[in-house]
Amino acid sequence: MGLSLPIGLRRDLDITLQEQIYRQVRDFILAGSLRPALKLPSSRDLAKELAVSRNTVALAFDWLASEGYVECRTGAGTFVAGYLPERAFNVPPAAPHTGPSAGKRRAPVTFTGRMPASVGRDRPRPEFDFWYGRLDPREFPITAWRRLILENIAKAGTHFSDYGHPAGDPDLRTAIASHLGATRGVATAAERIIITAGAQDGLTLLCRILVRQGSNVVVEDPCYESAALLFQSYGAALTPVVVDADGLRTDILPRIDTALAYVTPSHQFPTGVTLPIDRRLALLEWAGDVGAYIVEDDYDSDFRYDGPPLTALSGLDRDHRVIYLGSFSKSLGAGLRLGYLVLPPELIGPAIAAKSLASYGQPWLDQAVVADFLASGAHRQHLRRMLKSYRARRDLLVGCLKNAFGQEIKLSGADAGMHMMWTLPDAMPDAMAVAAAAARHDVGIYPLPVIGARSFARKVTADRGLILGYSSLSQNEIVTGIGRLAKAIAGL
Amino acid sequence: MGLSLPIGLRRDLDITLQEQIYRQVRDFILAGSLRPALKLPSSRDLAKELAVSRNTVALAFDWLASEGYVECRTGAGTFVAGYLPERAFNVPPAAPHTGPSAGKRRAPVTFTGRMPASVGRDRPRPEFDFWYGRLDPREFPITAWRRLILENIAKAGTHFSDYGHPAGDPDLRTAIASHLGATRGVATAAERIIITAGAQDGLTLLCRILVRQGSNVVVEDPCYESAALLFQSYGAALTPVVVDADGLRTDILPRIDTALAYVTPSHQFPTGVTLPIDRRLALLEWAGDVGAYIVEDDYDSDFRYDGPPLTALSGLDRDHRVIYLGSFSKSLGAGLRLGYLVLPPELIGPAIAAKSLASYGQPWLDQAVVADFLASGAHRQHLRRMLKSYRARRDLLVGCLKNAFGQEIKLSGADAGMHMMWTLPDAMPDAMAVAAAAARHDVGIYPLPVIGARSFARKVTADRGLILGYSSLSQNEIVTGIGRLAKAIAGL
Repeated sequence: MGLSLPIGLRRDLDITLQEQIYRQVRDFILAGSLRPALKLPSSRDLAKELAVSRNTVALAFDWLASEGYVECRTGAGTFVAGYLPERAFNVPPAAPHTGPSAGKRRAPVTFTGRMPASVGRDRPRPEFDFWYGRLDPREFPITAWRRLILENIAKAGTHFSDYGHPAGDPDLRTAIASHLGATRGVATAAERIIITAGAQDGLTLLCRILVRQGSNVVVEDPCYESAALLFQSYGAALTPVVVDADGLRTDILPRIDTALAYVTPSHQFPTGVTLPIDRRLALLEWAGDVGAYIVEDDYDSDFRYDGPPLTALSGLDRDHRVIYLGSFSKSLGAGLRLGYLVLPPELIGPAIAAKSLASYGQPWLDQAVVADFLASGAHRQHLRRMLKSYRARRDLLVGCLKNAFGQEIKLSGADAGMHMMWTLPDAMPDAMAVAAAAARHDVGIYPLPVIGARSFARKVTADRGLILGYSSLSQNEIVTGIGRLAKAIAGL
Repeated sequence: MGLSLPIGLRRDLDITLQEQIYRQVRDFILAGSLRPALKLPSSRDLAKELAVSRNTVALAFDWLASEGYVECRTGAGTFVAGYLPERAFNVPPAAPHTGPSAGKRRAPVTFTGRMPASVGRDRPRPEFDFWYGRLDPREFPITAWRRLILENIAKAGTHFSDYGHPAGDPDLRTAIASHLGATRGVATAAERIIITAGAQDGLTLLCRILVRQGSNVVVEDPCYESAALLFQSYGAALTPVVVDADGLRTDILPRIDTALAYVTPSHQFPTGVTLPIDRRLALLEWAGDVGAYIVEDDYDSDFRYDGPPLTALSGLDRDHRVIYLGSFSKSLGAGLRLGYLVLPPELIGPAIAAKSLASYGQPWLDQAVVADFLASGAHRQHLRRMLKSYRARRDLLVGCLKNAFGQEIKLSGADAGMHMMWTLPDAMPDAMAVAAAAARHDVGIYPLPVIGARSFARKVTADRGLILGYSSLSQNEIVTGIGRLAKAIAGL
């Protein structure tokens, strides 16, 4: 197993063990004594060596990864980052380091982005895992899927052998248009929809057509890390705008030329708050003033438990300002890699051109199956069933949390989506410490940096906020998990 | 149907009718009398109006599209390009033109690329269509596919609901590694392979990690247009290097810092010539000198009819210079949108990071099915069957061409792949004229600009070269098609 790290842990400090590990490894890396691309010991080996729980080390590694110091590669292990984290964005990275021909002259790597900390993770899953946004595999409509696949294969014709249209399957585009009209109050047409490989691919397409080196992009603070990293990797200058208890602070939006504003108005990620109507109108008016397009990421809007479904921001848009970003990852499954964009008329041509240059479009079979699933009404039924099932888990989780930590517990975002945020009371240690204690009891609850949420000025949320996802947990897992969490926190 | 174009055709000129249409429409556009995004009349209507065949108009539109003046959108029709063709690359396009809010202030479109002329085409297919690289849908292994899909769905587990690894399905990466070792003489490991949405997505990934504004990229002249457009859309400065009867002229490769050289050594696109060993070694040596990576696009190397399979350029690479670009579009079908990259060690980390930021990777089911198809040996059987079937069509086509146009007919690339290039003798009119004559007899043969091949200095090839694909045609279609072609040319 080779490398052993000269880490010294002290249990008499009021700083958690995994924070000590995080700090010491980070300092080794910054000092250059851990070279880029070097493989770190496995969390198991290091835990044994330091006589701490494996999850303590795993959390420290997650933390390092979330700040770009290391990369976790599934199956391969954890490595010191081979190029610089985003604080050094736009500095051309050094010549590559690894590989047998390291000495030789090579073209430099121009890519300055990095993998989101929450992707391709190599950490062991705790038994009671409140990781965000996971679907319950038992709920996947497997029978309908099998039938629709067989039906479509039977009439495949030239679909396997030929290229489809880069904008996507026409039937799917039509089905999505009517779905959005019926469920999100978005009146649109198939011609304005482009099928993508999930929401992330949709954001990539928008970067290609609207973002260049130095473009101003407004993001929420805190925001979805994968989006922020993507914008920066295309050279965008990010302007984070604080999210408060009512969502994005539209009164402090920057009065500068802005290419994009990336927002999650239905269920802000990660805080879960919903943007009220007055701020929605203010956001639209601001966009008109500064010439910005608004990207509405409606990632988990299919699930609203209290009150009627909200109209999407796009439904209020009278000026073709809003680009609607949709995904089937939360309603059907991330394994499908299917999402879509609804674009203003003037962006459709460039977007189709960019999509065709990028990949010639999406695979046909999944598109055909989802199109039938939507058109047949099976999707609506599926969503109703999910809503019922997720609401029950949500109610149970909220109940357990209030029993364990008091009625006045501060939860946000529990009224919709697949996760809620618990803001810890001042009496408790910070989120990293609580997560570490939970991990020692085999319970997974996640601070913002670990779950894939980036904080800028909002240090408070970053330090005090814990994300609890519930969409894939059984009743028993929720009850027992929160019971263990209570024990863990009591032990602090 | 609205717009009618003031086009005047003269049959007493020795310039073809579709060239006259091409020139007059182009001049209207350049003069600004046809506004961007304006819809042109359908080829049917315009043909009726001008009393010419519909294919004559379609060919003129193809030609205009191939140069970026118009866009053909399947189902929607042909439109004047909404932004500038590549001769104006890096000039920021004007504010968008269409849409109800045209007057309002908007962020500018930064994308300066355009859709390849050969993608999303709206033209009627002639009855005898020698379009390049199409698979015969009857040859798709539909039975095996259905079985493998059902098997994988049965054990789907969390694959539908969870994200996979951004680098792709581990089993598929392993299967590809052993496939490459066995069939292409490329010794590699699963860890060096990244699954992509076809070869184009692989090129996109390489642009992300290796190309920036002003990077030097070497391409073949003539070359695959979609690759050239992609590189330029990422700001690359292209250096075209002439292809002669023995392939790329490695003796005139530029001695400048170069990020990438994009080559098709097995079966050059479009000429079909194979790069001999001495030039392969010269290319590798040059890459070492200037620090370039070589992208080997092995697009249709599964099919070699005369002599043993060639070792890929990657098989000669001792210095991790060569990036191997593979695709299942020609062996299984473009509708799968699956391909892969084999990367040097130092590029794997950045490539996985870039892929995860771009789309989080590919859909799981197609990957799982292709993995099983490869691992079970069914893929090798399928390729053998295809090889036999394509060789028979190849032999028949070569025979028919020699009977019709003489034994000394100049064909290149007939020994491999799915198409050949016929260089017209000086006695005959140019390729556009011959293609137009063929079209009038409902036969589709294609000049380079129409098929998606970009020529730079090689005007000769561009004007005299005709591409004939045969992989999807029946014996009768080949015999009758070439018979009609002979009549068409005799009539010139």
